Amino acid sequence: MKAYRELSREELLSLKAGLEKEYEETKRKGLKLDMSRGKPSIAQLDLARGFFDVLTSESDMRDEGGVDVRNYGELDGIPEAKRLMADLMGVPVDHVIVCGNASLFIMYDTISRSMTHGLMGSTPWCKLDKVKFLCPVPGYDRHFAITQHFGIEMINVPMTPQGPDMDVVEKLVSEEAAVKGIWCVPKYSNPQGYTYSDETVRRFAALKPAAEDFRIYWDNAYAVHDLYDNGGDALLEIFAECEKAGNTDMVFEFCSSSKISLAGAGIAAVAASGANLEFMKKSMTIQTIGYDKVNQLRHARYFKDIDGVRKHMMRHAQLLRPKFEVVLEGLEKELGGLGIGTWTKPNGGYFISFDAMEGCAKAIVAKCREAGMVLTGAGATFPYGRDPKDSNIRIAPTFPTPEEMATATDLFVLCVKLVSIDRLLGK
Amino acid sequence: MKAYRELSREELLSLKAGLEKEYEETKRKGLKLDMSRGKPSIAQLDLARGFFDVLTSESDMRDEGGVDVRNYGELDGIPEAKRLMADLMGVPVDHVIVCGNASLFIMYDTISRSMTHGLMGSTPWCKLDKVKFLCPVPGYDRHFAITQHFGIEMINVPMTPQGPDMDVVEKLVSEEAAVKGIWCVPKYSNPQGYTYSDETVRRFAALKPAAEDFRIYWDNAYAVHDLYDNGGDALLEIFAECEKAGNTDMVFEFCSSSKISLAGAGIAAVAASGANLEFMKKSMTIQTIGYDKVNQLRHARYFKDIDGVRKHMMRHAQLLRPKFEVVLEGLEKELGGLGIGTWTKPNGGYFISFDAMEGCAKAIVAKCREAGMVLTGAGATFPYGRDPKDSNIRIAPTFPTPEEMATATDLFVLCVKLVSIDRLLGK
Repeated sequence: MKAYRELSREELLSLKAGLEKEYEETKRKGLKLDMSRGKPSIAQLDLARGFFDVLTSESDMRDEGGVDVRNYGELDGIPEAKRLMADLMGVPVDHVIVCGNASLFIMYDTISRSMTHGLMGSTPWCKLDKVKFLCPVPGYDRHFAITQHFGIEMINVPMTPQGPDMDVVEKLVSEEAAVKGIWCVPKYSNPQGYTYSDETVRRFAALKPAAEDFRIYWDNAYAVHDLYDNGGDALLEIFAECEKAGNTDMVFEFCSSSKISLAGAGIAAVAASGANLEFMKKSMTIQTIGYDKVNQLRHARYFKDIDGVRKHMMRHAQLLRPKFEVVLEGLEKELGGLGIGTWTKPNGGYFISFDAMEGCAKAIVAKCREAGMVLTGAGATFPYGRDPKDSNIRIAPTFPTPEEMATATDLFVLCVKLVSIDRLLGK
Repeated sequence: MKAYRELSREELLSLKAGLEKEYEETKRKGLKLDMSRGKPSIAQLDLARGFFDVLTSESDMRDEGGVDVRNYGELDGIPEAKRLMADLMGVPVDHVIVCGNASLFIMYDTISRSMTHGLMGSTPWCKLDKVKFLCPVPGYDRHFAITQHFGIEMINVPMTPQGPDMDVVEKLVSEEAAVKGIWCVPKYSNPQGYTYSDETVRRFAALKPAAEDFRIYWDNAYAVHDLYDNGGDALLEIFAECEKAGNTDMVFEFCSSSKISLAGAGIAAVAASGANLEFMKKSMTIQTIGYDKVNQLRHARYFKDIDGVRKHMMRHAQLLRPKFEVVLEGLEKELGGLGIGTWTKPNGGYFISFDAMEGCAKAIVAKCREAGMVLTGAGATFPYGRDPKDSNIRIAPTFPTPEEMATATDLFVLCVKLVSIDRLLGK
């Protein structure tokens, strides 16, 4: 296949005519496709049907410690749920608090608490002139939305297949006391599906922040979300590395079962050092009498242990693999060699990241929408919704069926070609 | 029975000798009683056993609107849960957002959001020199803990059997722009069990606050928690009154099913005007993708409607009545006419409020503890834990069995007598 850049104006125009006909035909089909969010499919949710039979009117409602989960108490979670979530993150159980149904909530809370109460004795951020966060880009829009909501200035840091550009991170973190945090999705990053290398994790753990209240916000959202039955990408456990580097208080790690059990009705957890947890609990004990322990018990009894989770996730993978593969095959077949886009080939997670030619992402997303397919808004993977190159598009293949994904991919590549040609033609 | 004040020093000393012997005997029993918190008993929780059989692997997991509750979405709650919680509060369904497992969380969040983002365009409280809250006393310790946590200055307002002293409330609210809110438990108030009169509610609705961001924090925690099958105390619905007074944005109302279905695994809701809800949702949509809709559906299907809730609550009342009655009978029999204490006789809710002679509450609580009974700390019913008269004690009769409550009451009156005699003897 010849790269589009090497085609003459006439060749491009002739190509465009054919593609436009194809596009008009597709539009007439009245497609309704949604690849905008990382939602599990109904088939994935059905894998956890048995989840609803774990606790019945006949069940023993006491946790391992003998506490009745139907009543108040146990602020930091029931023992068996703490163990499960600790194992999910690969951290010691005494680093963990199990919370409610969403890790996003814990992240929001963690930032909100820092705004009003600071961190372990430091000045509340709302009293500071300037608070900054580093944001590896492209990244997760909901992370950026939290920091934006609190008026925190976000600084883009380029991602690489090994993780964020650590030269940039080290420099900014060590030089600027206003830099209070960095958002990370260290395994199967959103949207690229990159897993941070051991070196990246070690460099994170060895950071020498200018700010005493600098923290790494380690959103381990896809800890067990492998697509292939080969153990998946390996992520170095960061707390152990921080321990070695004498930086035990520097990390907040988050995870949830939203994309394991049920989206929106899972359980979420935070891991942190003892000192951080003590500080968090001072607010939590004001905030709530306790999280939903019944749902915690349901999770612990359903999965039993981390092996139970892994087995369950292999069933997820069986459903997800064909969808990822149909996209990747379609991209390769239709766009390979054309020089009008690059994309990632993740081993897990929920997304594929596509980089179009500069200045094309918004137009591609708009063109897809015109023909009935909703994608995550172009720019959403960047702070303030501004992709400086207008290039990145997040593809979320999990919710549609494989057949729908095939149709979606056909439409997507068609739009990429059309917009790229217009771009090359100088329109 | 002769009032203690009328007894001679010798009579008091002789009485004391007998009571001390009794106290020493009680101590030897090694009692372990806990009346510290408003916790449902195991028997109450067992009334909702069927709750665990409502959703099984065979169930239709779609809500009334056809949305799969196992997946993301529906930020403000599923329609049937919104209707249930709206009916619980007696407000229109479009005033309601159904949230997670605890109304305390929503209250904390509401205050926290005002700190960082203000209210509907007003200055964030963290940017103000002074923020004040009115606190009807005695009141709910967890309310006071939230405002204290955020450094909000709390001002005591005396309670009456008709509700807070509205002369004081009207004056402070209309004169001081720093007064941003008032904590209210309008029905079966915590701890007295008073229900605000129609006049009180109307005066609340007609407040003319100096601050545009003044709100009434209306914690309708015991909306359906009657002890007797006579319809219970009637609380005027405040939104309708606010509407008449042209004060539609002035109220946040909170409720939960924690003491209806399961403590800690219920569902909670907030009611407010459309403008307030829109403002809240701007944060909520950053904070979460949605609350636990599975639990919302479980609640809606189990109770079906507000009548289902009321029937369920009558079964609760059958369990709670004997406990309240054993306390009230014990207090009347042992302390009636002695002039060393007064107490409330609520028609619902979770508490009885006891007022000892001035300067006696702490000593009574300590004396009870010494003999094996934990009460809510004296002072806890006041902001900063400071009861200016050291007089109020909250009695929580719900968790122990009626037999334990009889034993507890015997010990309690004994301690009240002993401490009061010491006080009268000038010790």
